[in-house]
Amino acid sequence: MRQVGAIEVYDGQRGPGILNALFATDRAMELADEHGVGIVALRNTTHWMRGGTYGWRAADRGYVAISWTNTESCMPAWGGEDTRLGNNPFVIAAPRKRGNVVLDMAMSQFSYGKLQAARLKGKNMPFPAGFDKHGRLTSEPGPVEESMRILPMGYWKGSGLAIVLDLLAAVLSEGLPTNAIDKIRQGSCTGCSQVFILIDPRKLGGKTLSDQVADSVVDSVHGSKVAENSTEVLYPGESALRNRNEQLEKGIAVDDGVWKEVLALAARKN
Amino acid sequence: MRQVGAIEVYDGQRGPGILNALFATDRAMELADEHGVGIVALRNTTHWMRGGTYGWRAADRGYVAISWTNTESCMPAWGGEDTRLGNNPFVIAAPRKRGNVVLDMAMSQFSYGKLQAARLKGKNMPFPAGFDKHGRLTSEPGPVEESMRILPMGYWKGSGLAIVLDLLAAVLSEGLPTNAIDKIRQGSCTGCSQVFILIDPRKLGGKTLSDQVADSVVDSVHGSKVAENSTEVLYPGESALRNRNEQLEKGIAVDDGVWKEVLALAARKN
Repeated sequence: MRQVGAIEVYDGQRGPGILNALFATDRAMELADEHGVGIVALRNTTHWMRGGTYGWRAADRGYVAISWTNTESCMPAWGGEDTRLGNNPFVIAAPRKRGNVVLDMAMSQFSYGKLQAARLKGKNMPFPAGFDKHGRLTSEPGPVEESMRILPMGYWKGSGLAIVLDLLAAVLSEGLPTNAIDKIRQGSCTGCSQVFILIDPRKLGGKTLSDQVADSVVDSVHGSKVAENSTEVLYPGESALRNRNEQLEKGIAVDDGVWKEVLALAARKN
Repeated sequence: MRQVGAIEVYDGQRGPGILNALFATDRAMELADEHGVGIVALRNTTHWMRGGTYGWRAADRGYVAISWTNTESCMPAWGGEDTRLGNNPFVIAAPRKRGNVVLDMAMSQFSYGKLQAARLKGKNMPFPAGFDKHGRLTSEPGPVEESMRILPMGYWKGSGLAIVLDLLAAVLSEGLPTNAIDKIRQGSCTGCSQVFILIDPRKLGGKTLSDQVADSVVDSVHGSKVAENSTEVLYPGESALRNRNEQLEKGIAVDDGVWKEVLALAARKN
């Protein structure tokens, strides 16, 4: 482990990505207690699963978080045809008494999972999802799954953000960028690099001010005049919070096919 | 000024936004020298003009920078019709000997400036630019300038990122979010909030490693197979560097009309 002031750099030893990311988040909070801000950069780790988890964890404890991971490549750079960029999920979280504000977004407009789900239902995506193998922009999921030419969010903008997030994650953690992760081939995200920046707003303007500002931003968004084809305007994390509350009440919905697989695995004797 | 470990918070007193942002960048570099990372949060400042300036400045001096500003509202939130979000330019910069990597992007897919320029040339945007006043997605600039319903980059993604960047800028600087800047009405960005996060990679893996990683990422992007409708694949900051070199050689191109206005202003006696 390397320690420089408010920054610590760890080798995740390809251990369980969730445990590594929880450790990194918690350690960055401790560093923030000491320095106002704490950064943990983590290299050589594995899939952190849902990135939002670490944002919610930090915000629940009163911290602001900026975290991201790089991944193996799954998307062409803007203007390119072959997959060279990761979807590099990016998380920004802020505490709010009436519901944390948590953005958790990948750099592709749609995930391959969303494309598959739409294809299985025979549906198109609501907006162009990528290029088919002939370079035609299309909302049809199948041809984009086939070409692997998914669209970066905002075209060149998501491409650019994916590139700099990859570069920063690798530089700060002394770890691997996407093009080197591609050579490992031991499962999604194995060998990836992550950054966790945690800040304690209670040490700045304080909890009351921080909550007032967060409410002001959320109330302004909620006060939007609703557009023709929409029913409501949400802040980042609002639908995740609803889903979570529904799950706490009714349990977690699991796909029947997946559940059968889980049961079969559980019944198997090794 | 409030000082907490590696973080300093300043009131910009609505002074010249460029000088305030230069000061904030330089001060955050000093804090990074001491703590590995330095953060300056700046409230009540004015327009910083081109955000990339502060990224280039930091990267030229060997630092990684993550900086952003909020602005007055100019864009609806996703699902909304009235302008509630700023375009909140976001800058990420990393040093690279053979050319810094600098992303400088606003949260709208296109700026009103780009829409105006296309309209004056009688051209459409290359992709949908926003909704017209009837809620129809369109690439025509005029109807979007009229409705002020420009599209966030990546639809809901750019909307979400604009919201959290606004919230964080206001919370960390103890300053104003977009909805409060809207009430000031003393010119674009007057009263805005900014954040400057500076990190020194020389204190981590060192300059040689940092350059190697940056080259690896850039070389991988440059190695892309070029798509059908493209001629090359660029990294963030590459075209800005080209423009800059061209300007150093040939001078800065100025619109004839604007230049006449400048000369007229210069000739005016007060």
